[in-house]
Amino acid sequence: MRAMNTPAERLAALRTRMPQLGIDLYLVPSADEHVNEYLPPWRARREWLSGFSGSAGDLLVGREEAWLFVDGRYHLQADSELAGSGIAAVKVGASGAPTLVEKLKQLAEGAPAPALGFDPHALSLGMYDALSGSGLRQVEVEENLVDVLWSERPEPATAALREIPEEWSGSSPMEKVQRVRAELANAKVDALLALKLDQIAWLLDLRSTSDVPYNPVFESFLWLDERELHLFVREPALRLPLGYASRLPELAVHDYGAWRAFLATRGGQKVRVDPSGATRGVVAALERAGASISRGDSPIEILKAKKNAAEQAAMRRANLLASVAVTKALLWLRRECARGVQLTERRFAQELERLYAQQEDYWGQSFGTIAGAGENGAIIHYGAAGERPIGRGELFLIDSGAHLAGGTTDATRTMAIGAADEEQRRAYTAVLRGHIDSAAQRFPAGTGGQALDTLARASLWNELLDYAHGTGHGVGALLNVHEGPFSISAGRNASSRPLEPGHVTSIEPGYYRAGWGGIRLENLYLVRQVGDAPVAEGEKRWLELESLTWIPFDENLIDRERLSTSQRHWLDLYQRECVERLGTRLDPGERRELASWLAERP
Amino acid sequence: MRAMNTPAERLAALRTRMPQLGIDLYLVPSADEHVNEYLPPWRARREWLSGFSGSAGDLLVGREEAWLFVDGRYHLQADSELAGSGIAAVKVGASGAPTLVEKLKQLAEGAPAPALGFDPHALSLGMYDALSGSGLRQVEVEENLVDVLWSERPEPATAALREIPEEWSGSSPMEKVQRVRAELANAKVDALLALKLDQIAWLLDLRSTSDVPYNPVFESFLWLDERELHLFVREPALRLPLGYASRLPELAVHDYGAWRAFLATRGGQKVRVDPSGATRGVVAALERAGASISRGDSPIEILKAKKNAAEQAAMRRANLLASVAVTKALLWLRRECARGVQLTERRFAQELERLYAQQEDYWGQSFGTIAGAGENGAIIHYGAAGERPIGRGELFLIDSGAHLAGGTTDATRTMAIGAADEEQRRAYTAVLRGHIDSAAQRFPAGTGGQALDTLARASLWNELLDYAHGTGHGVGALLNVHEGPFSISAGRNASSRPLEPGHVTSIEPGYYRAGWGGIRLENLYLVRQVGDAPVAEGEKRWLELESLTWIPFDENLIDRERLSTSQRHWLDLYQRECVERLGTRLDPGERRELASWLAERP
Repeated sequence: MRAMNTPAERLAALRTRMPQLGIDLYLVPSADEHVNEYLPPWRARREWLSGFSGSAGDLLVGREEAWLFVDGRYHLQADSELAGSGIAAVKVGASGAPTLVEKLKQLAEGAPAPALGFDPHALSLGMYDALSGSGLRQVEVEENLVDVLWSERPEPATAALREIPEEWSGSSPMEKVQRVRAELANAKVDALLALKLDQIAWLLDLRSTSDVPYNPVFESFLWLDERELHLFVREPALRLPLGYASRLPELAVHDYGAWRAFLATRGGQKVRVDPSGATRGVVAALERAGASISRGDSPIEILKAKKNAAEQAAMRRANLLASVAVTKALLWLRRECARGVQLTERRFAQELERLYAQQEDYWGQSFGTIAGAGENGAIIHYGAAGERPIGRGELFLIDSGAHLAGGTTDATRTMAIGAADEEQRRAYTAVLRGHIDSAAQRFPAGTGGQALDTLARASLWNELLDYAHGTGHGVGALLNVHEGPFSISAGRNASSRPLEPGHVTSIEPGYYRAGWGGIRLENLYLVRQVGDAPVAEGEKRWLELESLTWIPFDENLIDRERLSTSQRHWLDLYQRECVERLGTRLDPGERRELASWLAERP
Repeated sequence: MRAMNTPAERLAALRTRMPQLGIDLYLVPSADEHVNEYLPPWRARREWLSGFSGSAGDLLVGREEAWLFVDGRYHLQADSELAGSGIAAVKVGASGAPTLVEKLKQLAEGAPAPALGFDPHALSLGMYDALSGSGLRQVEVEENLVDVLWSERPEPATAALREIPEEWSGSSPMEKVQRVRAELANAKVDALLALKLDQIAWLLDLRSTSDVPYNPVFESFLWLDERELHLFVREPALRLPLGYASRLPELAVHDYGAWRAFLATRGGQKVRVDPSGATRGVVAALERAGASISRGDSPIEILKAKKNAAEQAAMRRANLLASVAVTKALLWLRRECARGVQLTERRFAQELERLYAQQEDYWGQSFGTIAGAGENGAIIHYGAAGERPIGRGELFLIDSGAHLAGGTTDATRTMAIGAADEEQRRAYTAVLRGHIDSAAQRFPAGTGGQALDTLARASLWNELLDYAHGTGHGVGALLNVHEGPFSISAGRNASSRPLEPGHVTSIEPGYYRAGWGGIRLENLYLVRQVGDAPVAEGEKRWLELESLTWIPFDENLIDRERLSTSQRHWLDLYQRECVERLGTRLDPGERRELASWLAERP
């Protein structure tokens, strides 16, 4: 087979296979066998086929046309990366643009209805359910059509796994397995299937920094029932830490590839499947084996999200150290700009990552650093910091995070390069007001993330502005920078799942205008109870957010006249706390620079 | 049969029938054959059986126990009205209290699972669906067990119907029927079944003030398909206005009782059924006939909610005149109190309703006036204004509305009787801030009512206060004071259905503390587009709220120090507009009193 170097050539090769299989459409979703958001390079099928490198976007290939469905974070990026591919970017969320399912429903109106092919093992159960309502004929193609074409495919990782200390995890794998079993018994199910990698890594206190970019997890499957515990992982004998087996004696370890055969032996059990953490392939395999499927929450997902005291301490420490790194980078940026040095996005990102790497127990970045100057700031998940200079009078948006000191971080700041103009300050202040309104809010237990989403947007809405992404996401403890089960969002993605004490969430309102630039202000917050007093039976429990991030907001972009008294009060307290908490972790010169920065009033 | 005068005797009689039918539980839901909220007296089965007179509350009768499930509006009222009945009030929303469905699931765990009996014609489809998940055996008892017992049952109404002028409705029944047919064709269904009385009244421009208390609708069923239009109503020859048939010639009119037989003839059609506006009985009848059921929105419900220009004008006029009546009553209250006259709740309500009745085209109140002084203000839907004196130092909550001038109104104010204390002002101001935050908010088209709910609560939440009811409901045009399809609420009742231009909604945050009193501040608002400019393709459409209610807020209860600049600005503008709009409709003396009231600064 001759080498296929462009998306157009690859699509053409795929299309030659489609008629042989009797399919008119082939779906290449963003996700893989583990419903990963960040894909191991050997699983990045959609990117290889389409050239689109964003973290989310499903590709639908027809006999003549092809469509990539992307959300507001990727509208601009899809335009630039899909140029010349023959693939149309469908901008979900923009007026009139259909979702994947709406598009499939339109296509289903043809006569005869076209046949849709897909690999059931690389299709999330949620998406399968949605497709099933489209009215298309469905053809489950067991062989992945992209894998078949993919020459020079990367090798999967086989590096040794790392066991994390109980000082960070706060609970041994054995204790966690017992808690999950108790939840399964409560829910009257026999077994739990886990294929989401952060669930497995959390349960077993194991991590890898080589399987998946940015996520310290490892490719594996897990089965847990009342008596048994099975792990499926590549090269288990080489990869598991020495002595691990003695600490969790009941763990039966198998080769990664043995998973499908194992499922075929699990007839007769009632298996809990979390629709957001499963694929059509595993559910179909269990059903063929005669197992019964109980859809519902994964107890691992629920327990993992509620950080225990040790995890909370690690997240506080990690985010403080990350704040030190970012603040040092921002002070360096201000110093270099003042000296008239012309920096590029890339040069800044290098310096920032160097400063992260100096922190305690640094394991790497938690996602690709976003450093967007000027109009690049409007590309919401701008992929690579590039050679673009950071110009005077522009806004500069920096979104970064790391795994360090036993925790995971994520923070965004936007800086004025030189003096800010009226429009920049007005928009920045509206975003800041939204951030404060959401972050300062107390709310009764049971409140869903949608409430905080509204509060973060209300100030912008009143100026007829908005942003095309969610307001916040869960963050794992030395795990994925995006995790469930809750979200702070609205509309299609809104979840009514309540915030609970121990959850860690980002709050990150923004404002973007193509060609002009972007603003985003993101901190991580820990959900905690208001006050220490125990709550009496029948009384309401009240919750609030504790900031984990301590990076100053740029005073040059704040119009204090537009803040209410209580917003000003929150801001003053926050800026003061930054100075105190960063304190001795900065050099004396940096401390002076910080003080003078925070005293600036434009 | 000897007369049964108490709920306990009535329950005992019901329980003698249950074993004969093989049922262990009998459900008497709040709703009736038309899923009415306000019941015609002859359909008020739950009230007759239990003695509980609130507008919402489902009764579950077991062989030995009985439970009434009530929401936060009725927690206190249920306690007082159920005393001695042997029925337990289950306070849904309070910590630990199960919903009806949760209770049924608990009961289903008995072995053998108990059998639940109900009248399918008096059970909403939504509740039937919820019950079906409970695991109980279900027995559909065609004969209503309460009707069988009910001696001295009231007679249903047979008074003549009123046709409303097109000046009020803005669109003839014939035009509305055509629009509904176009929507049915769009949705690819053949026919529509309507049993919600406000839907039928709106479509046909007919009203009655004698069928249902407070709702100007009439008991009827309606069937509409591509060619046919059938109305089922008691005494059609007597009740329909003279000449009505000539204005809608295609309307076939039948006796109310002919409905069930009619449904049996409708096999082969695909019938649109709105789950929130149907009963298990009609769906089962259609299924038995061989019709296919298409669940989805009722086009009538959707069209009715979006008021046209004539309906909007009528609602503006009606709510302004209602504001005149309420403001006159509040000024009278202040005058009488200043003179040292000891008023009672009832005396105030009489004066208020007298003032309403003086307004143009008065058709009656739109719900029972709530006039709660002191601790009675904490009974959220306090039923009857009673002989309780309105005492100095107390709060006095007045919630009232009427059908007048072709529209429907609903408004609540809370007054300080004499000087307000610090706690009263603090709580009132927090409620007012929530009202303003919600009412002043601009938001993008597509935003659900949940967003306004959050904004109305946020100020209260920050003081660890909340209210146990929704923030707002739709209001009909010369129709029911509560209508769908949207709601401004959170939690269990949250709806993601967006607010649309032409919707009329209440905004009514509150605060209540048993024994202390209650505060509620309610206006009606019309949803409208921001600005008049047409919105370009792909651009966001922005919406805002226009107040229909112009009743001043009590300055004696406002702590202006606690308002933000923009909240103060909204309030000043609102109070000034009240003076201007009420203007010449008040007597000169009243105008002076109003000016001096609004100048008071405690």
